[in-house]
Formats: sequence, C-alpha cells, structure tokens
Amino acid sequence: MKVDGKHYRTIWKKNKETIQIIDQRYLPHRFIIEDLKTVDEVATAIKEMHVRGAGLIGATAGYGMYLAALESTEENFLLNAAEKLKSTRPTAVNLEFAVQRQINKMTNIKPNGRLEIALKTAKEIADEDAKYCKMIGEQGLKIIEEIANKKETVNILTHCNAGWLAFVDYGSATAPIYKAFEKGIDVHVWIDETRPRNQGARLTAWELNKQGVHHTVIPDNVGGHLMQHGLVDLVITGADRTTCTGDVANKIGTYLKALAANDNNIPFYVALPSSTFDWTIKDGIKDIIIEQRGEEEVKYVQGLREGEIQSVLITPKDSQTANYAFDVTPAKYITGLITERGICKANEESILELYPEHKL
Amino acid sequence: MKVDGKHYRTIWKKNKETIQIIDQRYLPHRFIIEDLKTVDEVATAIKEMHVRGAGLIGATAGYGMYLAALESTEENFLLNAAEKLKSTRPTAVNLEFAVQRQINKMTNIKPNGRLEIALKTAKEIADEDAKYCKMIGEQGLKIIEEIANKKETVNILTHCNAGWLAFVDYGSATAPIYKAFEKGIDVHVWIDETRPRNQGARLTAWELNKQGVHHTVIPDNVGGHLMQHGLVDLVITGADRTTCTGDVANKIGTYLKALAANDNNIPFYVALPSSTFDWTIKDGIKDIIIEQRGEEEVKYVQGLREGEIQSVLITPKDSQTANYAFDVTPAKYITGLITERGICKANEESILELYPEHKL
Repeated sequence: MKVDGKHYRTIWKKNKETIQIIDQRYLPHRFIIEDLKTVDEVATAIKEMHVRGAGLIGATAGYGMYLAALESTEENFLLNAAEKLKSTRPTAVNLEFAVQRQINKMTNIKPNGRLEIALKTAKEIADEDAKYCKMIGEQGLKIIEEIANKKETVNILTHCNAGWLAFVDYGSATAPIYKAFEKGIDVHVWIDETRPRNQGARLTAWELNKQGVHHTVIPDNVGGHLMQHGLVDLVITGADRTTCTGDVANKIGTYLKALAANDNNIPFYVALPSSTFDWTIKDGIKDIIIEQRGEEEVKYVQGLREGEIQSVLITPKDSQTANYAFDVTPAKYITGLITERGICKANEESILELYPEHKL
Repeated sequence: MKVDGKHYRTIWKKNKETIQIIDQRYLPHRFIIEDLKTVDEVATAIKEMHVRGAGLIGATAGYGMYLAALESTEENFLLNAAEKLKSTRPTAVNLEFAVQRQINKMTNIKPNGRLEIALKTAKEIADEDAKYCKMIGEQGLKIIEEIANKKETVNILTHCNAGWLAFVDYGSATAPIYKAFEKGIDVHVWIDETRPRNQGARLTAWELNKQGVHHTVIPDNVGGHLMQHGLVDLVITGADRTTCTGDVANKIGTYLKALAANDNNIPFYVALPSSTFDWTIKDGIKDIIIEQRGEEEVKYVQGLREGEIQSVLITPKDSQTANYAFDVTPAKYITGLITERGICKANEESILELYPEHKL
C-alpha cells in the first residue's frame, strides 16, 4: 500500500545480505525502516514485535530462514534456526508453516542448492501472502457492496490490526475495505484501539489515515454500545489461527465483539488467507495455545510526548497484571470466513468444500 | 476505608467554608486532597472528574448545594446553582436526586433556615450513601460465601471503579469483596483497566492495594477469555442508573462482560444503593442518555513517568475518536441486583418487592 505516495510492502530484500522491514513499534509516530541481517535479528524482530500479524510473521520467518542459510547451509544449523524462529511466538500458525516449508525445501536437496531455494521460497511465501490478501479483498467486497446497496455509509468495525501491516500487502480484514473505498463506496471504519499494545489505535488508524479512509478510533469497551444503537453494519476481523471447524484465535477481545455482534444480529466475518488454517485441530478453546506476554505491556502505555516516544505507568507500581495476547471465538458466533478462494461458513463441511485437498 | 492506616471518606466538611475531597485525577500516583469553597468549584470537580462514581457525585452535589447556600439563600440563586450542578454529568441519576432533595428541603422553608437545612441534608446524603454501601456489603457477602464453600479462591471480575472511591465509603461492587476479605475468605479480583480513563487500573487497583486485597489488572479485552477458561467465578459491577425494569447503565464495556458471563454461565451481579434507581423509565437502551466525553480522553493516556504525571498521544494526531462514557446492559443478562435491602432479580416485579413504595 502507499505511504505518502510511495508504494511499500511490509518486508522486502534490499540486497543479498539485507532484509528490510518497517519497524512497527514506532508507528504511528515514526516511520522507521530496519535492516535484518541474521536469523537472530529476525527472531528478535518477531518476538519483540517490530513485525507482527499472522501473515507478516510468516513472511518474516521465511526470510529469516534465508538469512540463516546465508550463515550456513549445514542441516543442523538450519534446524536450530527453524526451532529458534518457531519458538518466538506460539499462537500464529503462519509462522510454523513458513518455517516448515523452508525446512522441507532445503533439507530435500544438497547444501550447495539451499541458499537459492531459501530465497526463492521466502519470496514465494511473501508473494503468495500479498496475492491471497488481494483475492480476499475481491471476495469480501461483495459483502460490503450488498450493504452499500441499501444504505449510504457502510459502518465497519474492526479489532486490532489485520491490515497490510499485518501481512505483506493489502491486509486481510482491511482488504475488502480498501477495495470498497477504491470503488467509491462510502465506508467508515470503527477501530478498536486494542489494548494492551494498541495495534488498532496505532497501526490500523495509521494505515487508514495514509489511504484516506474515514475512520474513528474507539476504546475496546465501546463496540457493544455502538451495535446496540445501529451504528455498526458489519464486523470484519483477522485471525491468527483457525481450526478446520471454524474456531478463530485472534487478538484478545475479538470474542467479546463476536458476542455483541451476535446479540445485535450484525454480521461478523473473519478474513484470512488459507495459511492461517490449522488443519490438525478441531477445538479452538481447548487446543490453541494462547501466548501470555510480559506484565509491563499492561502496566505501561507508550505514546508521543513533546516529540519523543515515551511510556507512562498507568497502574499502581506494585499491582499485578495479566497479559493474554489472544482469545478464541467459537465458530457458532462467526457469520462467515472470507478466504482467497471465496466466502464460506465457519464449519468443517463448508471450509472443506473450499479446501477439498484437506479432506482426510 | 483506610489509606496507609488512616480512615478516610471520599468527601468531608473541613470547616464552615470548606468541603474537602480526594482529587482522584492523580491516583494511584499521588494522594491529593482538594478544598472546595464554591458551587462553581464543585461543578468543575464533578465535570472534570476530580470526583466520579454514582454515589460520590450525588454526595458532592449535596455539599455543592450547601456551598451555594453559603453564598446566597435566595431562591433564584439556589435554583441556578441546582441547574449548574445537574448539567455537569447527565448519566448518573444520583446527581439529579441529590440536587432535587436539597432544593425540595430548602425552598420549602424561609431563607434564614436554608443554610442549616442544606448542611443537614448534605450530611444525610453522604451518611446514607455510606450506610447503604455497608449494607450492600453484608447482602453481597452471602453470594461470595456460597462460592467459597465450594472452592478455595473466589475469583471475582469487576469493571471500572465501583469502590469506596465511587461512593462515600465501602463502595458498591467492592463492599461484598471487602466484607469477604475481612472474614478471611480467599478472594482474588480481576480488575478491568477500563479505558479510556482507566478507573479500574488507577482507582480500583489502588483501593484494593491499600486494603491488601489480592488482585490482577487486565486489559478490557481479557475478561471473556478468562471466563471461557473457568478463571472467573463471579462478576460484580456497579451502576450509574438502573431502570425499574432492571436495565443497568454503567461504565462503557459493562455490557460486553455481561454477554461473556451469560455465554459462560457465570453469575453477573450489579451492586447498587437504591439512589441509583431511576423509577421513571423502563427501557434503558432507549431512554437513558449516554454521556459523550471529549476526544482527547481516548487519544491521550495519562500515567507516571520519572516521578511526573504526564500524558502521551497514542493515536495518529489527526485520527478522529469517539468517547461514549456508559453503556446499557439489558436486564436479561443480569443475574441479580445487590441492594441495601437485599438481593433481587433484575425485573420490575422483583425490584418492586424490595421497594414497594415505588409501586404505582
């Protein structure tokens, strides 16, 4: 997508030794590009959330394996690098898949071909991500168009950042919004700020701002009230891991919005490329590991003050906090899944109709 | 309640000309006592949230009318003062009732007796608030005891601050918690931070800290996940206005927690003194006016940095925000109301059994 007129992806190869990313920790206040030159730097960038979002974590891990192969194409080294990357964040399945795809490709051939195949695969993962997001946009556009046929402004609520910053380009939840905006539909987006890391207030708001899409940032507490009063026509969120039965792990708080949408008969869609499906599990609440992050992310809030990015303590110094990064929305509260192949219901039968290759 | 060993109420008369309050804007980082000497200062203290919370707003307005009578006991002046106080915050019904109670008392007698009756009434409103909260504690204790009979630690989730800082003493939602803690029951409280003003993270955490009650501060997004995983035994919130049919207006986000409690079969109680009932309306979602506050409360977060209380900007500078202060939880999602007279169901029949004087 465009940043001040120039097209960017969230990750790209600068030269043989250098992968570049947008360091998202400083958005919306600073647009900083970071060089990554080793697999350790990649692991840190994922763990410390310089990059985040299901698709982008996968793409970054793909390039991480390329940087690993630059250091050594020896099998043990590559397997260690793979473990290091996989352990950075446990919930998003894209990470695991991207790393495994690299390992399968590389260990299948002799060491002297591994670097080349690693680069090719990293590019493929990134290009596929961008392509799938674009296709999600086209699929999801239909849902927005249907609403736009009945009323002037289409009010869409989204949670966290499932925008282009969470992928390589276009985004998942935002792709249909960008498509609708391009087509001249009057869309207005309610953005949940998404505590504790404020990816909505920081990243989604920044993205929509840069593309000129009309939006309003709201505290995470507000969505239910808006829905009760007819101010939301549609909810679209992303996903970090989706079971083959349609349960969706996504940023903490997604479940609460799904409940409110259900209570007010508002369609609740999840947009995801197929890389986000975990075909091995069926019960999201029981089987998806939910990452717990540091206490300080809850105790401190980061923002801009007098031109500097600073953190302020909001709780009593010695109060304990808890920081669950994701929750699971049961399939029964999800109206549909918007994938690159089409829109399906959030149940095994409907999902497998779109992805018959995963039928047992 | 106690602050570092000394008993405090949230509001008290220092001398003939001076009412004192705890200026809650600086908690948990600073404990600052503010002098109020005029009705204008009282109006500012309510509007700018030096004091907040249904009961305390009522008690402060009561003393505000006393300070007004100190300036002049002329009827027009008093009626103007009353209007000024009523207009500060629209949602909490206690404010309106306290002011009206003063006006009824004062305008019923000759000017030279008005100052005395104003002081007496202000004290009555404050004492009644403290007394009712204490009784709520005794009533609500039964619910906690019942859970404690079956398991060791009782995990209670609360939203915003319905603690002693929201009333004159004891609090509404916290009163049963303090009672249970006194009796040696092992209670642990999940505190929603309650964006945008973080009354949970700032005030409830401070209160529970000072009394030594075990607690964990969580982002507003987390409660649903905790409930899905059996980590919450009971939800208790306060109320800012409750219809005679049991719909509850309370801090924005309460409705989302009620939905999650309902989805996970967790009891959801609202604790309120009878001053919080609005006997004149029946449909909370349609008829309760929801206050909208300034955009800057969402865009900026206040906290402590290097010993100073500072604000940081979290959104892009030019993103728009919305700030609805309350939402309405429909009666059907409320397990029961804990009042000073006992516990009743959230429906008109059950409420009027406790308050038969309000039967038409």
